[in-house]
Amino acid sequence: MQQVQVGIFLFDEVEVLDFAGPYEVFSRTRLTPGVESRRSDETAPFKVFTVAAESRTITATGGLRVIPDYDFAAAPPIDLLVVPGGFGTRALLHDAPVLDWIRRTAAGAVRVTSVCSGALLLAQAGLLAGRRATTHWGALDLLASLDPTIRVEANVRLVDDGITTSAGVSAGIDMALAVVEVMQGRVVADDTARYMEYDRRLPPTAR
Amino acid sequence: MQQVQVGIFLFDEVEVLDFAGPYEVFSRTRLTPGVESRRSDETAPFKVFTVAAESRTITATGGLRVIPDYDFAAAPPIDLLVVPGGFGTRALLHDAPVLDWIRRTAAGAVRVTSVCSGALLLAQAGLLAGRRATTHWGALDLLASLDPTIRVEANVRLVDDGITTSAGVSAGIDMALAVVEVMQGRVVADDTARYMEYDRRLPPTAR
Repeated sequence: MQQVQVGIFLFDEVEVLDFAGPYEVFSRTRLTPGVESRRSDETAPFKVFTVAAESRTITATGGLRVIPDYDFAAAPPIDLLVVPGGFGTRALLHDAPVLDWIRRTAAGAVRVTSVCSGALLLAQAGLLAGRRATTHWGALDLLASLDPTIRVEANVRLVDDGITTSAGVSAGIDMALAVVEVMQGRVVADDTARYMEYDRRLPPTAR
Repeated sequence: MQQVQVGIFLFDEVEVLDFAGPYEVFSRTRLTPGVESRRSDETAPFKVFTVAAESRTITATGGLRVIPDYDFAAAPPIDLLVVPGGFGTRALLHDAPVLDWIRRTAAGAVRVTSVCSGALLLAQAGLLAGRRATTHWGALDLLASLDPTIRVEANVRLVDDGITTSAGVSAGIDMALAVVEVMQGRVVADDTARYMEYDRRLPPTAR
């Protein structure tokens, strides 16, 4: 089986659930339903890995220390890019290597997604120009100010307009399940949610 | 402010969302509502850290690599113990140092909690004897078999019977928010959920 390569971007002060929610969803999806299929990767349609600018340990919000799988230079091709949010995004809004990497990776990806204030990085990289998009409720104004051509939507769980942006923190779980549904079908997405004992919120714009 | 010391147990093959959900909730709780208060720890009622048997890097399910803050020997006193689940629990069911540490830590803690199949470790440590408890739907039978005095409950989000056990994976978020509510009040718990853009599921037995 050809696995979809899922690259999750990590950086200092990334919000824990922003990356851990999609990480959980994509890494635990199986084409065979139930619990036992999760003991191996045999029917795993996604291969998940983390990428950071450098290979050093990342400190997420709250102090959680995560070792990225790859730095920018060593990362394999990415089919599905996940850009999480967190207060750490603010320091990256003028980080040229990060924005360049996001732009280049997005150009080669089948699908580009963000969680929470990760949308700010996509906007600053120019990827949301002219598109509808959303972000954490506390970052909606900042998102609009970064690029006035973005049609910022409030009070939605996610927006899919070529690029998939989601609302804050926990909305990344719904975003990831929505992507699983688009790529692997509703039965697989619902089984993954059942495994996680997660009641999916129907994203009003994407379903 | 005297912070509640929250120790989250980590081990190889711990399920990512099992520990990341409570980590997010407890580390992002603030007594002052809104987004700005989350930029510092000034009004953070909980101090969250991770503990593993040894100080080496932990590999969670899917391959996520996390560096624990403390090993058993170096861990500070824990007020609130979180035991997450995952397939890795099975290998620990006969690990005497781990079960001893859980037993000793629980004895000194104000509150003991589990997520998902973390309940298996609490059961094996003898902590659930005679109590009502729950776990992931795929582990209910195993939980009952480990200790026949446990009154295992199915189809509940969490059970609070002196020790707080939750259902699978995402239920750890609800468990943590329920503990925040008990310890810091409903306003603080609801504000934390709002920050995370998480719609709380009302745990039928604990609210």
